[in-house]
Amino acid sequence: MSYFPPHIDEMTGYIPGEQPSDPDVIKLNTNENPYPPSRRAMAVLHAATTEQLRRYPDPVGQHFRQPAAEVLDVSGDMILCGNGADDVLNIAIRALTGPGRQMACPTPTYTLCEVLCRLHGCCIQDIRCSEDFSLPVDALAAAGAPLTYVCNPNSPTATFVPPDRLEHLARRLRGVLLIDEAYVDFADQNCLHLARQLPNVLVLRTLSKGYSLAGLRFGFAVGHPTLIAGLIKAKDSYNIDALSIAAAAAAIGDQKHFRNNVERVRQQRARLTAALKQLDLQPLDSQANFIFARCQSPPARDIFQALKARNILVRHFDEPGLDDWLRITVGTPRQNDALLAELESIISSSNT
Amino acid sequence: MSYFPPHIDEMTGYIPGEQPSDPDVIKLNTNENPYPPSRRAMAVLHAATTEQLRRYPDPVGQHFRQPAAEVLDVSGDMILCGNGADDVLNIAIRALTGPGRQMACPTPTYTLCEVLCRLHGCCIQDIRCSEDFSLPVDALAAAGAPLTYVCNPNSPTATFVPPDRLEHLARRLRGVLLIDEAYVDFADQNCLHLARQLPNVLVLRTLSKGYSLAGLRFGFAVGHPTLIAGLIKAKDSYNIDALSIAAAAAAIGDQKHFRNNVERVRQQRARLTAALKQLDLQPLDSQANFIFARCQSPPARDIFQALKARNILVRHFDEPGLDDWLRITVGTPRQNDALLAELESIISSSNT
Repeated sequence: MSYFPPHIDEMTGYIPGEQPSDPDVIKLNTNENPYPPSRRAMAVLHAATTEQLRRYPDPVGQHFRQPAAEVLDVSGDMILCGNGADDVLNIAIRALTGPGRQMACPTPTYTLCEVLCRLHGCCIQDIRCSEDFSLPVDALAAAGAPLTYVCNPNSPTATFVPPDRLEHLARRLRGVLLIDEAYVDFADQNCLHLARQLPNVLVLRTLSKGYSLAGLRFGFAVGHPTLIAGLIKAKDSYNIDALSIAAAAAAIGDQKHFRNNVERVRQQRARLTAALKQLDLQPLDSQANFIFARCQSPPARDIFQALKARNILVRHFDEPGLDDWLRITVGTPRQNDALLAELESIISSSNT
Repeated sequence: MSYFPPHIDEMTGYIPGEQPSDPDVIKLNTNENPYPPSRRAMAVLHAATTEQLRRYPDPVGQHFRQPAAEVLDVSGDMILCGNGADDVLNIAIRALTGPGRQMACPTPTYTLCEVLCRLHGCCIQDIRCSEDFSLPVDALAAAGAPLTYVCNPNSPTATFVPPDRLEHLARRLRGVLLIDEAYVDFADQNCLHLARQLPNVLVLRTLSKGYSLAGLRFGFAVGHPTLIAGLIKAKDSYNIDALSIAAAAAAIGDQKHFRNNVERVRQQRARLTAALKQLDLQPLDSQANFIFARCQSPPARDIFQALKARNILVRHFDEPGLDDWLRITVGTPRQNDALLAELESIISSSNT
């Protein structure tokens, strides 16, 4: 006998990418930033006081909202803070969908969406992308769901949909368009202006990627004050801790460090993309901090396994339509050197 | 037009106790511990590394589970970590109830339960306590809900139900009995042995009260490994951050500091209870770090307002059955001195 309802018993839960404890492993599998976070954020943590810890934190993270509002050119009440962008995504699904209400998602995209929909008993409308992974805008608009999700740049493909196409989609929808910009820090453009202009656009951001703070768990959404106020009702009362608020505020205030790190990743992305093409792999043009590359000979799965045996982790999705591909996080120059050397050796030995 | 479903539009959300920024306010309204957290926990935070922040944290907080399992005499897979006990409560409601499944709660109790049930579209069965706030065990057993919630010591009353009565309840239930022990660190007994013995008992703990870490957001549940594994499927993938895990591990490892702080609060609780009686208020016997006291002349609301005007915050619940009472957090000796002096002045001036 189980204490759980059938939909929980039957589900497997979200499976995060592997996190090896061996420091010698080159980790290019979970899209962490290879460079350290802002020194200002570290200084805030190193100066943590007993009073910060002893007291409950500010429920809405006012201390983060202020500098973030300045950097993003929005008002503080347009920002919802969360325990990672996953928490904010969860809040949005909880508040906007629920049983009998649908969420429309293109496929493939961030796999957590499907897990969260199952948990909340809401119906997910998977709308398959065409073979080149371009966004099925018409089908998403036709679905007319209370919540439509678009990850831009998308995961696992790293492809980018121009903001004017998403604006067009948002204007056709009667529900909310959630644009997950977890990776947008590495892109040429973003959709923040849509959150300023349209009452039904919610832009999701994280400090895990561009700001190198995946361990801190801090994400936020930007949207119309009415939308944000409704979402706040559906969050945990104290969903962000006092130190995260303080460190996130310091990190977003340090735009110089942020831009510098992002630029280094973008340079390595260009170099890695070119080198993968030289190896006859077929990377898509990436606007994220990872590259999605087609590998047919040898098969992607074999390359994934061979790299793993050589202490390099990348991500392989064992699913129809994705199993010919590898998702590779952009690392430091030295990590990318090692990756390319091993790839060359794996590919050349398979061709002989 | 609203983007939200009616149950979200109609709800007000949970209203946390006031958090004034003025450091001169004596805060006896949200049951924080008046003493600082363990120095070992602070040292861990002060030694935070860029690698801890840059990488995703361990999804299940293995680093906390190990020392906690030792202190609590359970196995690591019997522990579910959460972003505060509220997160764990949320996970339990999400995983065990949902639309068409009920949660049984005595009234009055922690008001977040009702908010969470509304959010998850599950039906809450409010089962009213008798006038002396004793637990309606038979009615809870008869409700036969998939999830039954008991806060012990209860909030806002600080009263305690002996473990053998809860064991009796658990054995009569076919669903899960969640015993919220947020305040149990200050009690003479606890129900941890029930989580070890019975497959349907889940004990909820927090580091916010006894360990003085409300700002850190760290809570956990203890239960049978099968129950914990099911709940893990319903949690956010990375629900606890790397620093919280490390600091919580250090704090629970420092039992000497913990016991010392708890003992100081218990001593002040005894003193405050006696003094409130002297003032003709009627405090219930408390097993928590706060006292629930009946105040009829002058009315509780007037005392609450008068204390607030004198920069002392306590909690008044403006609801039938509770509006004659004040909930007062046990403070430091100096804070309690100030509270008692002001109370005496307020009461004597109202009697003249």
